Amino acid sequence: MASAPPATGCKVVLANTVAQSLLNENKETLAKLSKKPLLVGFLANEDPAAKTYAEYTGKTCMENGFDFELRNVNKDDIEEAIVSANTDDKVQGIIVYYPIFPAESRRDQYIQSVVSPTKDVEGLCHTYIFNMYQNVRFLDAPHNTMKSILPCTPLAVIKVLEYLQIYNSILPYGNRLYGRTITVINRSEVVGRPLAALLANDGATVYSVDISGLQMFTRGEGIKAKKHECHDISMKLEEVLPISDVVISGVPGNGFKVPLQHLKNGAVCINFSSEKNFTPEVKQKASIYVPAIGKVTIAILLRNILRLAHIQAATSQSVLPA
Amino acid sequence: MASAPPATGCKVVLANTVAQSLLNENKETLAKLSKKPLLVGFLANEDPAAKTYAEYTGKTCMENGFDFELRNVNKDDIEEAIVSANTDDKVQGIIVYYPIFPAESRRDQYIQSVVSPTKDVEGLCHTYIFNMYQNVRFLDAPHNTMKSILPCTPLAVIKVLEYLQIYNSILPYGNRLYGRTITVINRSEVVGRPLAALLANDGATVYSVDISGLQMFTRGEGIKAKKHECHDISMKLEEVLPISDVVISGVPGNGFKVPLQHLKNGAVCINFSSEKNFTPEVKQKASIYVPAIGKVTIAILLRNILRLAHIQAATSQSVLPA
Repeated sequence: MASAPPATGCKVVLANTVAQSLLNENKETLAKLSKKPLLVGFLANEDPAAKTYAEYTGKTCMENGFDFELRNVNKDDIEEAIVSANTDDKVQGIIVYYPIFPAESRRDQYIQSVVSPTKDVEGLCHTYIFNMYQNVRFLDAPHNTMKSILPCTPLAVIKVLEYLQIYNSILPYGNRLYGRTITVINRSEVVGRPLAALLANDGATVYSVDISGLQMFTRGEGIKAKKHECHDISMKLEEVLPISDVVISGVPGNGFKVPLQHLKNGAVCINFSSEKNFTPEVKQKASIYVPAIGKVTIAILLRNILRLAHIQAATSQSVLPA
Repeated sequence: MASAPPATGCKVVLANTVAQSLLNENKETLAKLSKKPLLVGFLANEDPAAKTYAEYTGKTCMENGFDFELRNVNKDDIEEAIVSANTDDKVQGIIVYYPIFPAESRRDQYIQSVVSPTKDVEGLCHTYIFNMYQNVRFLDAPHNTMKSILPCTPLAVIKVLEYLQIYNSILPYGNRLYGRTITVINRSEVVGRPLAALLANDGATVYSVDISGLQMFTRGEGIKAKKHECHDISMKLEEVLPISDVVISGVPGNGFKVPLQHLKNGAVCINFSSEKNFTPEVKQKASIYVPAIGKVTIAILLRNILRLAHIQAATSQSVLPA
C-alpha cells in the first residue's frame, strides 16, 4: 500500500504575522507610560514616495497609540528644525524622510547625525551605526540597562529570522546564528551592509553580494570573537547560493531576480525589496518564503520610540551627548 | 608739474609668509610640552597623491618638532586601526588619507567620524563639523577653555584673511568680517561649504558658487544672530564678482579660470586649488593675490595637534565622548 506523500511545499510567512507579537509587546510597554509618545517626521523633499511613507508612518502611529506630527520644512532649514526638536521635551522620536540633498553632496549623511541619539528612531546617527558595526549593544556599559538603537530595516530582518527560528534560542544571546550560512543580496550603507554585519556579529557566515562583487562577513576567530570581520572574496553568487541556508534579497528596481536554479533545496528566502526579487517558482524549492517585511519594519520603528522614551527618562547629558 | 604716478600694482603674498607666524606660535606652545606629540597617519589606498601628501606631512612634522608615524593598513582593517589609536595614550593626533572607499559607498564619511574628537587633527568628525556649522566655538561651554577644532583648509583660508587684514580686528571677535562681501568658488563638503559657513558666521555676506548654482550665506538677522543662514539665489558668477571684496577659488582640475573681466578693481584674490584658478593677468586688477595656501594648511594641522594635546590633558570622558 502506498503511504501518503510527504508533506512538501513551501510555507509562506507574511510580515503581518511576524509584526503581531512585536505590536503586542509595544502595547504592553505603552500602557506603562504616563503619556503618549510623540514621533515627529521631517519632510524636506518633493518625493511622492517619501510623502506616502510619511502618511503611512502617521497612520500606523495613530492606530497603535502613538502621536505623530509631520513637519514640512525647506531643505535649507532642516538642520535647524532637527536641532530644535532634539531639545524639545515634547518630542520623543524623530524620523527624517530621505533623500533631501543630492547623493554626491553627502549632506544627508551629515543630517543623519544631527538627530540626537536620544531621539533617533531610525538608528542612523553615527553613535548607533558605530555601535552596530563595533557590536556594542548597550549605551550604558557596564550597567547594560539601555540597549543601543538598531536601524529599523536590518533589525526587522533579524526579527523575521528569530520568528522563523533561524536564530537558535538554545545558544547563548549574541551567538544564536553560529553555524548558519546566509547570503544577503544588497550592500547599501543603510540596509545591506549593516545587516551583514549584524548577522555576522551573531555568529553567521555571511556572503554579502552587490554588483561590485562579494564580501564575506564572519565573527572573526572562534565563538568568543567580539565583532565581525569582512573581506573581499572571489566567489560568485551562483557559488554561494548552493551553500546558503538563508537567502535575503533587497535589490531595488524590477531588473533583478534571484537565480533559483542555484538555490539549495529547503532554503529560507526573504525579500526586503519593494519589488519581488524572487519569482513565484521560489516556492518549489524554498522551505520558507517571506515575500515582504515592511510591516515588521514599522513595528520596530514604534518599538524604537518606546526604547528612546526609556532612554530619555533614564539618561543625563553625561551619558548621551546631544 | 606732473606728480609721481600713484603706487599701483598687485601685492603677491606667499603662503610661507603667512605660515611663519603660525609656525612660530606652534614652536612656543611645543616648548611647554613634556614630550613630543605623535601624529599617526593612516594610508589605506594606493593613490600616489595620498602617499606624497603623507610623506610631506611626515617631513613637515619632523622639521617642526613633532613625531610622525605612517601606518599602511588594508581598507578592511581601517576602522579597527583607528579605534585602536583612539584609545592609545601614545598617540596625540590622527590623520587619515582619503579617499579609501568609493565615493558612492559613503564609507569615508563614516570613517571620518570613527576618529575620536580627542585625536581628530583634520576636524572632520561629526562633532567638529556640527560645531562649525552651528557656530559652537568651544567644547566646554560655559568655561570656554577648549576651542573646537576646525577643518584645516577652511581655517587656513581664514588665517590668510586675518593676515591680509580682511578680518578687521577693531570689531569684536566673531564679527570681524561684518560688512565684507566674499565669493567662494567651490562648495565641496570638505572645504567650500564649511568655508562659506565660517565666513558668514564671522559676519561676511558670502556668495558660494559651484556648477549647480549659487547660494548666499549670511549671519542671519543683524549683528547679534548666532549662526549663518544659507539660501539658493538666482544670481550668476558674473553678477557677484563685481560686488565682491574678496574672491576665493578652489576649483580642482585645469579647466576653470576666474573670469577676470568681472572682477572689481582692487579685489583680494586667493587660490586654494592645487591648480591655478587665476591667470597671471589677475595682478592687473587685484590689490592682493595669494597664489596658494598649502603651507598655511599644514601649519594649521600642526596647531590642531597642539590643541588636541591640550584637550587630551584637560578632558575626561564626560566632556568629550569617544
